[in-house]
Amino acid sequence: MANEGGGDEAPLRRIALVIEYEGTAYAGSQYQKNGRTVQGELEKALRKLTRKAIRVALAGRTDAGVHAKGQVAAFLTTVPYELGVFQRALNSHLPKDIAVRSAHEVALGFDVRRHARRRWYRYRIYNGNSRRPLFRSQSWHVSEPLDVEAMREAARQLVGRQDFAALAAPVAARGGPQGSTVRTVYWAEVRRRRCWVLFDIEANAFLPQQVRRMVGALVRVGQGKETVEGFRRLVASARPGAASFAAPAAGLCLMAVRYEDVDLGNTEEAHDI
Amino acid sequence: MANEGGGDEAPLRRIALVIEYEGTAYAGSQYQKNGRTVQGELEKALRKLTRKAIRVALAGRTDAGVHAKGQVAAFLTTVPYELGVFQRALNSHLPKDIAVRSAHEVALGFDVRRHARRRWYRYRIYNGNSRRPLFRSQSWHVSEPLDVEAMREAARQLVGRQDFAALAAPVAARGGPQGSTVRTVYWAEVRRRRCWVLFDIEANAFLPQQVRRMVGALVRVGQGKETVEGFRRLVASARPGAASFAAPAAGLCLMAVRYEDVDLGNTEEAHDI
Repeated sequence: MANEGGGDEAPLRRIALVIEYEGTAYAGSQYQKNGRTVQGELEKALRKLTRKAIRVALAGRTDAGVHAKGQVAAFLTTVPYELGVFQRALNSHLPKDIAVRSAHEVALGFDVRRHARRRWYRYRIYNGNSRRPLFRSQSWHVSEPLDVEAMREAARQLVGRQDFAALAAPVAARGGPQGSTVRTVYWAEVRRRRCWVLFDIEANAFLPQQVRRMVGALVRVGQGKETVEGFRRLVASARPGAASFAAPAAGLCLMAVRYEDVDLGNTEEAHDI
Repeated sequence: MANEGGGDEAPLRRIALVIEYEGTAYAGSQYQKNGRTVQGELEKALRKLTRKAIRVALAGRTDAGVHAKGQVAAFLTTVPYELGVFQRALNSHLPKDIAVRSAHEVALGFDVRRHARRRWYRYRIYNGNSRRPLFRSQSWHVSEPLDVEAMREAARQLVGRQDFAALAAPVAARGGPQGSTVRTVYWAEVRRRRCWVLFDIEANAFLPQQVRRMVGALVRVGQGKETVEGFRRLVASARPGAASFAAPAAGLCLMAVRYEDVDLGNTEEAHDI
């Protein structure tokens, strides 16, 4: 752990990175022995850069094919690089579908997962009659017209502190190692912009597949296959995995993760073109 | 040429298609013996659908890696399908990175290339300090800050009927088979939306690489490496290939092609998200 620049021991630091990735080619965010993952690529890039094995933690677990504009990663290091150097050098070592948007020095005790207060996800549906090649890896194409007013009314049922077992993958919803299936949704919004239907939701945390199953159930409402009242009952049932259809991963993007006392400057991604 | 539905000879029709594609995996729009092309894929899908060899013509030639939201293709056929069937059936035969947005029956004498009055292209630059994985195949990343006011002033020099030899690939600009290098630009606009710099241009027609070389030269102005006056002299020189740097293909998209008497309904793509 000797600092090459001198005899002093370099102080330990915790660095947080705001990360963007296209999830299409990944088996998900979390490290897997067999499979390309975002965590795995970040650790590989850090090893190339620092010549040290560094364990990276991520704020939100994203499934295979899910994207992020504002994922947050954090790690401990004694490497004395400036933050800008970390950002640029990591970007030169990372594959083209992952990038560090910004780097921040945070408190040593910062826990990227446990200290996260809010996670904001966006789901994009293309609701026109023909598919869109230029958006295919970042949206779900639903060709039948969607009743966005009904979807909006249904989405209101999601706001608040409640048991979301019905809207999670059954394994996760049965509790067990994951514990409680109660989460707090701060806001949820469905809106149409021409042929696009966007679903935005922010919560303290999410259960596995929760956003995709919410979207699957909301689209059934938009198609008239389910009523708003039926949607309400589905949510209220808290029956593990009751919402059995998960919308495709490609439409989902982790937009931002917010912390109480740390501003990572990653809250304006809604304004991307 | 017998119509399977009866003994009558089915009438010859000309069909126009509005096409979207992601150009990343293509050697360009025009048929090549060795290389995947948009024209080649359209002809293959038509052959699968109709069991006939059908020659397709495209309104605009796009280079390898260039995208389109509103390319127009046209062909002659006696196949009596309704237009909606053509659209849906072609989309089921086309690869995921090409789609038919709409199908139209046009006059038999319609010439998709010669009758096109205006072509609108958009070039997208991401002008932030770190690269953007989610936009990498559809933008050019320029990290140095760009002076958009200077670029806008320079872009004004492009409007009007003039010799664009300086802004075309040298081979094309030397005339020869392509003939005149005079074109009419109806409007050209540079604007900033947060970290994005968009260049839109509409002309009667374009020389090979013209938009990409325009963008290459405009970005030099935005970086302060060239003055607006220098840009004006470059354009006025009409020296073949004087603007030697072509911006990367990935940032370019053919937004729409417009005809005098035919409304293909492809003029609202600016409002995509």
